[in-house]
Amino acid sequence: MGSQSKKRRKSAGFIHVEPPESIGYDGLGFDIIHRDSDSKARVGSLKTPHGTLETPNYIFCGTKASIKNVMPQVMKDLQTDIILANTYHCMIQPGPDLIEKLGGLHKFMGWNGPMMTDSGGFQIFSMGHGSVADEIKGRNRNNSKSMLKITEEGAKFRSYKDGSMIMLTPELSMEIQRKLGADLIYQFDECTAFHVDRDYTEMSMHRSHRWGDRSLKAFDEGNDGTQGLYGIIQGGVYENLRKLSTQWVEDRPFFGTAVGGSLGGSEEQMNEVVAMCMDNVTKDRPVHLLGIGRIRDVFTFVRMGIDTFDCVSPTRIARHGWALVKGEPQERINIRNARFRDDDTPLYPDLDNPASRDFSKGYIHHLFKAGEMLGMQLLAMHNVATINLLMREVRQAIKDGTLDDLEKEWLPD
Amino acid sequence: MGSQSKKRRKSAGFIHVEPPESIGYDGLGFDIIHRDSDSKARVGSLKTPHGTLETPNYIFCGTKASIKNVMPQVMKDLQTDIILANTYHCMIQPGPDLIEKLGGLHKFMGWNGPMMTDSGGFQIFSMGHGSVADEIKGRNRNNSKSMLKITEEGAKFRSYKDGSMIMLTPELSMEIQRKLGADLIYQFDECTAFHVDRDYTEMSMHRSHRWGDRSLKAFDEGNDGTQGLYGIIQGGVYENLRKLSTQWVEDRPFFGTAVGGSLGGSEEQMNEVVAMCMDNVTKDRPVHLLGIGRIRDVFTFVRMGIDTFDCVSPTRIARHGWALVKGEPQERINIRNARFRDDDTPLYPDLDNPASRDFSKGYIHHLFKAGEMLGMQLLAMHNVATINLLMREVRQAIKDGTLDDLEKEWLPD
Repeated sequence: MGSQSKKRRKSAGFIHVEPPESIGYDGLGFDIIHRDSDSKARVGSLKTPHGTLETPNYIFCGTKASIKNVMPQVMKDLQTDIILANTYHCMIQPGPDLIEKLGGLHKFMGWNGPMMTDSGGFQIFSMGHGSVADEIKGRNRNNSKSMLKITEEGAKFRSYKDGSMIMLTPELSMEIQRKLGADLIYQFDECTAFHVDRDYTEMSMHRSHRWGDRSLKAFDEGNDGTQGLYGIIQGGVYENLRKLSTQWVEDRPFFGTAVGGSLGGSEEQMNEVVAMCMDNVTKDRPVHLLGIGRIRDVFTFVRMGIDTFDCVSPTRIARHGWALVKGEPQERINIRNARFRDDDTPLYPDLDNPASRDFSKGYIHHLFKAGEMLGMQLLAMHNVATINLLMREVRQAIKDGTLDDLEKEWLPD
Repeated sequence: MGSQSKKRRKSAGFIHVEPPESIGYDGLGFDIIHRDSDSKARVGSLKTPHGTLETPNYIFCGTKASIKNVMPQVMKDLQTDIILANTYHCMIQPGPDLIEKLGGLHKFMGWNGPMMTDSGGFQIFSMGHGSVADEIKGRNRNNSKSMLKITEEGAKFRSYKDGSMIMLTPELSMEIQRKLGADLIYQFDECTAFHVDRDYTEMSMHRSHRWGDRSLKAFDEGNDGTQGLYGIIQGGVYENLRKLSTQWVEDRPFFGTAVGGSLGGSEEQMNEVVAMCMDNVTKDRPVHLLGIGRIRDVFTFVRMGIDTFDCVSPTRIARHGWALVKGEPQERINIRNARFRDDDTPLYPDLDNPASRDFSKGYIHHLFKAGEMLGMQLLAMHNVATINLLMREVRQAIKDGTLDDLEKEWLPD
């Protein structure tokens, strides 16, 4: 058998690719430095070419190569360790070649710390279901027609920028993510929607596995040891699929493990689905939970062994007037509420940043009432600082064995 | 004659008020520390209860008690000396009583330096002509009906917030500006539009003078020495009216002199009209030019003796992609232009702030293309830093006698 046929065997329309048996991640590392005695919570040290961070940690979303309203220098001041950008958005505007020409994502956006990119799959498929259409250009437009076709080869879609046809494949996703140059990158996968049935979920999961093998292969060919590739556990809400997919990821030479796909239709089901995966994770790789990140989720899932979270919510809800507040049973308050009109207290004076400390709630309330963009900026800063405080305290509580107490401090009944 | 009839004499429907003969401005001062030998340009030291600044200087607009997209802490870092807020906007949202309750404008918006408020007149009258309707809520709406009536008593208008009827008088303007607590405040006046005729301009000028006397009287009654009141020269484009109005301001115990009203329909006419005023200014009070502030205007008018400028343009044009650039014949470049797509140079690396120094033009171009609000923030920061650089260099050039050379550096042919 020639090497070509070894790499890609087609049967029944499937593209089978043998993944490499091992991959060197020389510039990266993950060490577990403390394990909780009451749960699977752990404190880890995640080393990347752009710095080492402690886990559990929170990866803030810089969707289009920009944290909304917050400069990277300010993100650092707010004690942020790691951010992400979305491959899909960066590929459409300004394009991976331009970012590469201008020195890669880190240099392009002025963030010199650890960074992650996703594979591009999530946004494409979400658009197919119309659920993140608002995200694309920060406004409401019907993008449900932009997803044209998913085939064994990849996903064909129409660019929202110029209407051109783009075929995103595992190989192209790896090529783009290499050009972007983030430290932690992701296999290409399909993020199945909640409403699809078991048959589709299973079929899609197997295709995502094949896409994962092609991702590994393509990654290995261009690997220079500066990026760590994550495999993604699929399988929807079905326990045996989740188990099978977890095993699939564990069996392959990924740097990290991610829990992806549909996590169900309720908080209870989400917790069950993540548990279906985490009960079967055995290797001490860093584990990322894709797209989930309320404060209560952090407490729930660090106990299952999740190391990193990402969610747009801290900066997105800021644009709608929501401030995350430690000790608030609902996690957050809406500053537009009339009760804050003449409130002369700051959001959180113990947090060492101007947004949390130096402005009254009454002033920020006014900024939202007056439509002043500075309000969004201040709440984005405050929410980032609050999440970073949460993660620092979570790490310390794991070390101290006081996670239950800390949860009560953050989320009293 | 009783004291009441002395204060307010009505004849032919006019309200005549005797202004005080002198007013104490104990917490403020203005010293001229250098005069140019080739022009009337001068370097002054303007002392306020919130700090002393050198003039010529530029007062940045925080219209609704917020510099658009830039935190006050960052304004300081950008070497800003003084900012303003608009009485009209603050009076509608959140209201002067609330700002007073929360400690006054300085504390409310977190700016601890020198500050100015206008009288509220400009926005009301502009709305009457429909020309700054866009300003009100940052969007286009027809506010031409909001100005209801100008009478001897004051200006009656409808609040854009709740539709309520408000009568703004010289006395109320003084009361509001006292509650807001800025260091430099303004008499109530009517800013006549360019299209009105000579008769209207003359009638309005005399009414503004009467409003000025009422402003002085009301100011004096509440004066605690912490605010300096500016008189405003009106008279439209008519030389004898401007001369008369300049004399009127000089004859009264104002702390400062401002050139206001319509300055004509062209750059040439504007220069003529400002000269009509400045040729007749004899007293060494600080002189402010209301609402004018392109780079070329600064060079033109400091030579006539203008000490301070204000204009929304540095932060407003930033929102439309314009960056002010030293050495650019047109003063500014539009970062959205395709030629900046792959430009890896920063806007102005010698300026000590992240926006000017740490991001490529290509990146800021991308932010605007992608609709990322961070782009507006970066250009606002850069433009403020650039104007502050301009003013520092203008002051030094006046001291060195090199204003002509400096102008060629900033605005080459």
